[in-house]
Amino acid sequence: MTVVRVEEKVLNENQRIALELRRRYEENRVLCLNLISSPGSGKTTLLEKTLASFRPEERVAVLTGDLQTENDARRLARYGFPVQQIVTGGVCHLDGKMIERALEKWSLADLDLLLIENVGNLVCPSSYDLGEESKIVLLSVTEGEDKPLKYPSIFHKAALLVLTKVDLLPYVPFDMEAAKANARSVHPEMEILEVSCSTGQGMDAWQAWLQQRRAGAGLQAASR
Amino acid sequence: MTVVRVEEKVLNENQRIALELRRRYEENRVLCLNLISSPGSGKTTLLEKTLASFRPEERVAVLTGDLQTENDARRLARYGFPVQQIVTGGVCHLDGKMIERALEKWSLADLDLLLIENVGNLVCPSSYDLGEESKIVLLSVTEGEDKPLKYPSIFHKAALLVLTKVDLLPYVPFDMEAAKANARSVHPEMEILEVSCSTGQGMDAWQAWLQQRRAGAGLQAASR
Repeated sequence: MTVVRVEEKVLNENQRIALELRRRYEENRVLCLNLISSPGSGKTTLLEKTLASFRPEERVAVLTGDLQTENDARRLARYGFPVQQIVTGGVCHLDGKMIERALEKWSLADLDLLLIENVGNLVCPSSYDLGEESKIVLLSVTEGEDKPLKYPSIFHKAALLVLTKVDLLPYVPFDMEAAKANARSVHPEMEILEVSCSTGQGMDAWQAWLQQRRAGAGLQAASR
Repeated sequence: MTVVRVEEKVLNENQRIALELRRRYEENRVLCLNLISSPGSGKTTLLEKTLASFRPEERVAVLTGDLQTENDARRLARYGFPVQQIVTGGVCHLDGKMIERALEKWSLADLDLLLIENVGNLVCPSSYDLGEESKIVLLSVTEGEDKPLKYPSIFHKAALLVLTKVDLLPYVPFDMEAAKANARSVHPEMEILEVSCSTGQGMDAWQAWLQQRRAGAGLQAASR
């Protein structure tokens, strides 16, 4: 019981910080998106392709979380936009406090879009609100169509499911229709995109989704 | 600080249970192995192929953990050996208490081998000792060769790394030598196997590893 109460207290404290972050994003008209998936589902690669599609004057920044290494920040920094690595040192998720601390180095007034790449973990990050406008869950077709049923929390909370690595469909036993039906059984209104960062398939639809979301947030959309 | 102290207390309590589980496994000469990986790396499929290779009189049982669904227990029960699903209801790992409770339904004296499939999560399960003789970490080649560096704890603690889905190597950008070097940089003595459950590649080596481990535990090896 003690554990549950302390977990509740930690989550309540996180919620307080998340509300303040959300207020700041709205005040500065920054669209914040929180990308969540298993390790190796392709979060960093999707972000690389996304950053590569933006014009240099785009007011975008990326926070990327990992237990260890600055590898992802190095990969993402090549596109010329501000990037910070958050090394959690073993913690299995990003929390509001980590985001708040990272944002001390930037002015939100200079940004339109803040992309957060969470720690690779399909479970714990779903419990920590980072003040984002939406969570996005990625699932690669190599992981199997049963995952939305086994990890319902994140599929319930995410606005969008991006099915990644669809170029591998000929080589893996993945039932696309079952995957979508499973996702919609836990989240009937879920938006779903199929994407391959290798072939470029579905990247237009992903960029259109992003632009629409930015327009919805009343922001300048300026991708080329 | 409160959180840290409570986490320590939970882990200490888990360690007490794990020590008792380990004593019971040893007393009953049961080899217990704890399989850990990201969601969709192929734990259940590897277990299916392993169970299929055993003779019916084999004294083996499986505990399989998931946040939700009894899917994996259903898949694994088809091979005729005792299987129990542990539904954690959202908890991101198995702990000693869950194993202890599940084992109330079985007599360890009837078993030689207990295979535990942990919740799909490359982070949290590494912190919870289940009394196992060894942890085994699976990494599919679709996840990328950088994972041992990003998730060092489980690669440090596992005796064996099983690189799965090697049949997909022609279609994914995975550097096998870098993956092995990364794993050995966090765990120099790590044993490493390459396996494909689709083509059967490496299954002999996996079964040989298993038999050797069982022989080491002084157990009857009886796979066909």
